[in-house]
Amino acid sequence: MAPQLDGYFKQVDSLSDHFIERLRKAVAIPSVSADEERRPDVVRMGEFLAAELSALGAEVESRPLGPQPGHEHMELPPVIISRYGNDKKKRTILVYGHYDVQPALKEDGWATEPFTLTIDDKDRMYGRGSTDDKGPVLGWLNSIEAHQKAGIDFPVNLLMCFEGMEEFGSEGLDDFINAEAKKYFADTDAVCISDNYWLGTEKPCLTYGLRGCNYYSVEISGPGQDLHSGVFGGTAQEPMTDLVRVLATLVDTNGKIQIPGLDELVAPLTEEEKALYGDIAFTMDNIHESLGSNTTIYPDKERTLMARWRYPSLSVHGIEGAFSQPGAKTVIPAKVIGKFSIRTVPNMEIEEVNTLVYKYVEEQFKKCGSKNTLKCYAQHTGKWWVASPKHWNFSAAGKAVERVWGVKPDLTREGGSIPVTLTFEEATGKNVLLLPMGSSTDAAHSINEKLDKKNYIEGIKLLGAYLHYVAEEPMEN
Amino acid sequence: MAPQLDGYFKQVDSLSDHFIERLRKAVAIPSVSADEERRPDVVRMGEFLAAELSALGAEVESRPLGPQPGHEHMELPPVIISRYGNDKKKRTILVYGHYDVQPALKEDGWATEPFTLTIDDKDRMYGRGSTDDKGPVLGWLNSIEAHQKAGIDFPVNLLMCFEGMEEFGSEGLDDFINAEAKKYFADTDAVCISDNYWLGTEKPCLTYGLRGCNYYSVEISGPGQDLHSGVFGGTAQEPMTDLVRVLATLVDTNGKIQIPGLDELVAPLTEEEKALYGDIAFTMDNIHESLGSNTTIYPDKERTLMARWRYPSLSVHGIEGAFSQPGAKTVIPAKVIGKFSIRTVPNMEIEEVNTLVYKYVEEQFKKCGSKNTLKCYAQHTGKWWVASPKHWNFSAAGKAVERVWGVKPDLTREGGSIPVTLTFEEATGKNVLLLPMGSSTDAAHSINEKLDKKNYIEGIKLLGAYLHYVAEEPMEN
Repeated sequence: MAPQLDGYFKQVDSLSDHFIERLRKAVAIPSVSADEERRPDVVRMGEFLAAELSALGAEVESRPLGPQPGHEHMELPPVIISRYGNDKKKRTILVYGHYDVQPALKEDGWATEPFTLTIDDKDRMYGRGSTDDKGPVLGWLNSIEAHQKAGIDFPVNLLMCFEGMEEFGSEGLDDFINAEAKKYFADTDAVCISDNYWLGTEKPCLTYGLRGCNYYSVEISGPGQDLHSGVFGGTAQEPMTDLVRVLATLVDTNGKIQIPGLDELVAPLTEEEKALYGDIAFTMDNIHESLGSNTTIYPDKERTLMARWRYPSLSVHGIEGAFSQPGAKTVIPAKVIGKFSIRTVPNMEIEEVNTLVYKYVEEQFKKCGSKNTLKCYAQHTGKWWVASPKHWNFSAAGKAVERVWGVKPDLTREGGSIPVTLTFEEATGKNVLLLPMGSSTDAAHSINEKLDKKNYIEGIKLLGAYLHYVAEEPMEN
Repeated sequence: MAPQLDGYFKQVDSLSDHFIERLRKAVAIPSVSADEERRPDVVRMGEFLAAELSALGAEVESRPLGPQPGHEHMELPPVIISRYGNDKKKRTILVYGHYDVQPALKEDGWATEPFTLTIDDKDRMYGRGSTDDKGPVLGWLNSIEAHQKAGIDFPVNLLMCFEGMEEFGSEGLDDFINAEAKKYFADTDAVCISDNYWLGTEKPCLTYGLRGCNYYSVEISGPGQDLHSGVFGGTAQEPMTDLVRVLATLVDTNGKIQIPGLDELVAPLTEEEKALYGDIAFTMDNIHESLGSNTTIYPDKERTLMARWRYPSLSVHGIEGAFSQPGAKTVIPAKVIGKFSIRTVPNMEIEEVNTLVYKYVEEQFKKCGSKNTLKCYAQHTGKWWVASPKHWNFSAAGKAVERVWGVKPDLTREGGSIPVTLTFEEATGKNVLLLPMGSSTDAAHSINEKLDKKNYIEGIKLLGAYLHYVAEEPMEN
């Protein structure tokens, strides 16, 4: 099937220097969304994308999102939406990416200038945004261009949605997606997002699940103001004493959450799902290396991956209001706020989890017998997402990976959340696939971010091949 | 006894405007020891004191303490030492005070200019340093002047030690005191420090005890760097989980320290000591007011005062290395350091306490079954101090209080520490008395610090009367 692909691949190879030049131009625009002073660069990056898309013959619109909440003197960068092809006989695939990047300064420890694409002798292309997410975003543009230059008919109608605030909470995007779901995105048949990474460095993957995250505050207060422990120590009930006692009851060293009822919400592990874990290219050495220690909970890869992907976890992040500096301060803090979050998985519903958490925290505080005051509340909540990896969207991507990389992809989930995934699924009602281009060593949010040249060029082939296979897949599932 | 006092008191009254002017001049010098830019003002304040003492005919020396540790480009302010009288037939009393002050800015919320002494219609004299400790320091000088002007023989030889770094850890002072103990301070018969406060606002007190303070760090580390809880939550043992579990075992809500063996070190309460608490001018309303809440542990004054003065307490101050800002961050901190301190009392020896603390913390960590790494260590330690309130130094002060204020003073201890107290006791081998001038509402380290005019003027009488009675006391105890 997909006989046109050989010509397409050949064309990608012959255009590879040109595609690297395109990435170099994009990396050179420091589109840091978290930095007010860089906002014009973010806007400029959107304009660059829009101009490239226009030059390729795509329809492009730059959609304003209004002033930035909390920073009303600044406009949010626009969403660049684009359509390439409008053939009713073809499937329509909606792809998402982001053109903003994380902050980066040479003095943070970068070995090269962060906004100058620098290729080393192992063909690693260093630069902020190379892998997150300018490489994958340009992948779609490159795929269009290679089809044109090879004279191969583009197999689908491609809808594109590229935002400029992903690294700053995707402000304004959910409303935009919901508003356009039955308009600009109305004929979407499936969604593909290339904004995550392989589990390791050798084997490609398709990602079909993400955990959710409920983030809680436990606030305990008593005295009218901070106290001196010499004067008041021993005479007053201290909020910190209560707080550490409550936080200590949440989870044990081996990650076992102590809140009754949470386990019962977790979807049971089926034999079918269990069978998926054995073949995944991942070792305990991989996790020990990324941890920088051997302080893992489980000795085996299967249970470790399940703990990351399909079981909930609870982490205590810190305490606001207490002494947090180096050195010694003999304060009795008057009000302290413990912060913890629970990563959620099917079938933990947000409200059910909240109810169990509040009840448990209140019970534990009550056990302290304290006259202090407790408040427990969710700071934010975000639902888990799991797609069916048997959907034609995934089968097509699986065939594309086999054709380009010569291996069946791992089917992975991720422990973290990419909230836009669930937004697209809920707004369009269509299957969403996460199809990563880069690998686990790309250091997306760190210094020395890179994208391997091979991942970029083969990734362009992969995105194009996916579109060919997705055009051919039967509709039944 | 002490028949000369009536004349002295009269003289103090008639000089009261002059003494207030002297305090006004001192408050006007912003001798903030914590502020590098104010260092010249601190030095100027020392020079002012030295000049005033010289004018009164005292011998004065300004002793340099060398460069400030950690800020070697700056000299520490000198210690001003002075002798007034050198009559072998008289007792020699060594008094201590400090001429530096806490920081103060009008915009911190002061109702008046902090470095302008401002007297309101209730004769409250507002200004930084008014009560802590410029008022008491000038009290000694004023006492000399009133004797001279009244033509009354000064009853003792007065040695004075006034430092300029008390509000910044008394850097360099301990070594100085130890070096001068057998030199400048060699003929000291007793020590008097006026640098604390009445327990309330109505009744004077003599203070005979201070708690010590052992300050601990509990450091737990595991991963090589901070982790993302989405990626690692559930797969790795988290240092914060272990730390809150360890901290939770230290003390309960009602202040009961859970470390075995500590209680046994505490000197038993004797009937004699117990009897001291009933008469002390203090109510539960007083502590509820200063707490700003009713979250006290004990319902009665006696047990509350004992908890502050003569029993140990343990406070958890905070955590370094965890997320401590407002908002939400999904970090798994790689290394966290819990901070707690124990206020110590007789007969808790520093090393014994350390040993029990380390053993207990290690046991509690072991119970977690964690692969993370624990370190527990003392950041600093300071011993408790208790003097005998039956010593002639105290009897003399008691008589002076009765003569000036018409009531027997409360015998109090304090929950906090004034480390120089123990240094003077150990260096000179003599009894040390804490004889406060100001009251509990003076707000020493806060905005709107004040000294009541009555406390200042009667306080000058008190210091002089103390010197007369101390000259007359029999030697036996």
